[in-house]
Amino acid sequence: MTHPGPRPPADRKADVLAKLTAAVPDVWVATAAADTPYLVPLTMAWLRERIVLATDAKSRTAANLTATGVARIALGATRDVVMIDAVLGETFPVAQAPAWVAEGYANGTDWDPRQAGGTYVYLILRPDRVQAWREVNEIADRTLMRNGTWLH
Amino acid sequence: MTHPGPRPPADRKADVLAKLTAAVPDVWVATAAADTPYLVPLTMAWLRERIVLATDAKSRTAANLTATGVARIALGATRDVVMIDAVLGETFPVAQAPAWVAEGYANGTDWDPRQAGGTYVYLILRPDRVQAWREVNEIADRTLMRNGTWLH
Repeated sequence: MTHPGPRPPADRKADVLAKLTAAVPDVWVATAAADTPYLVPLTMAWLRERIVLATDAKSRTAANLTATGVARIALGATRDVVMIDAVLGETFPVAQAPAWVAEGYANGTDWDPRQAGGTYVYLILRPDRVQAWREVNEIADRTLMRNGTWLH
Repeated sequence: MTHPGPRPPADRKADVLAKLTAAVPDVWVATAAADTPYLVPLTMAWLRERIVLATDAKSRTAANLTATGVARIALGATRDVVMIDAVLGETFPVAQAPAWVAEGYANGTDWDPRQAGGTYVYLILRPDRVQAWREVNEIADRTLMRNGTWLH
């Protein structure tokens, strides 16, 4: 099996941004409550350099995020990975969300939580660390953002 | 957009087993340590009804699993999901693993931790709960295994 050489960091950043702004980017969202991990697939929108999620206010993801303030998010395939450690900023019930969140989420995904009924909330997450790798040869330079700042 | 009807539970179980025994099944493994989630892609083998992972003994996944005993594992795509809550059983350093683990892992994946050097361990996980769904119409019957027992 032959593998391509590692991508330069600038190419990896471009690939990350392409994934974040793809049509309907689905992500894996890991949260925790004490020593118990939780993990679900959710649909995100990338708005104003933030990851915007929408989920039921009563879900474990919303409860864990509200309690702990942190999530670890995976994007892409297991062998073309983007890993994002993110910090919770604002939370908006759907009826109280500003237009850039509600309109942006509806435009950036394939559903609109405002039409879904129930008790959905938007969770606005700030990326703190971003890593991206495909094969073992990309592990070395995998960190693209640290402390909220792109390194390249 | 039209969606197919929900799969019968027996079909979902068959689809789950097909994913578990696919060539090189990669999984997303979520663990936790004191409110901090961790998440990485790993390659598994399905051996004797167990999920067998191999990772560095010094990795956060190995440390979290050893400390807490639980992982939440995702398999498949975000819109064709298998979610497995699993419990850690035995852990074997590569040099001390029984043949069914070491040979089985090498045969069921595309790498052999015994050849990788370093301090790899095999982590043997018992599925406790298995859920599978594609669309919203499959949420209702998503639980296929509970308390370690297949429901169908």
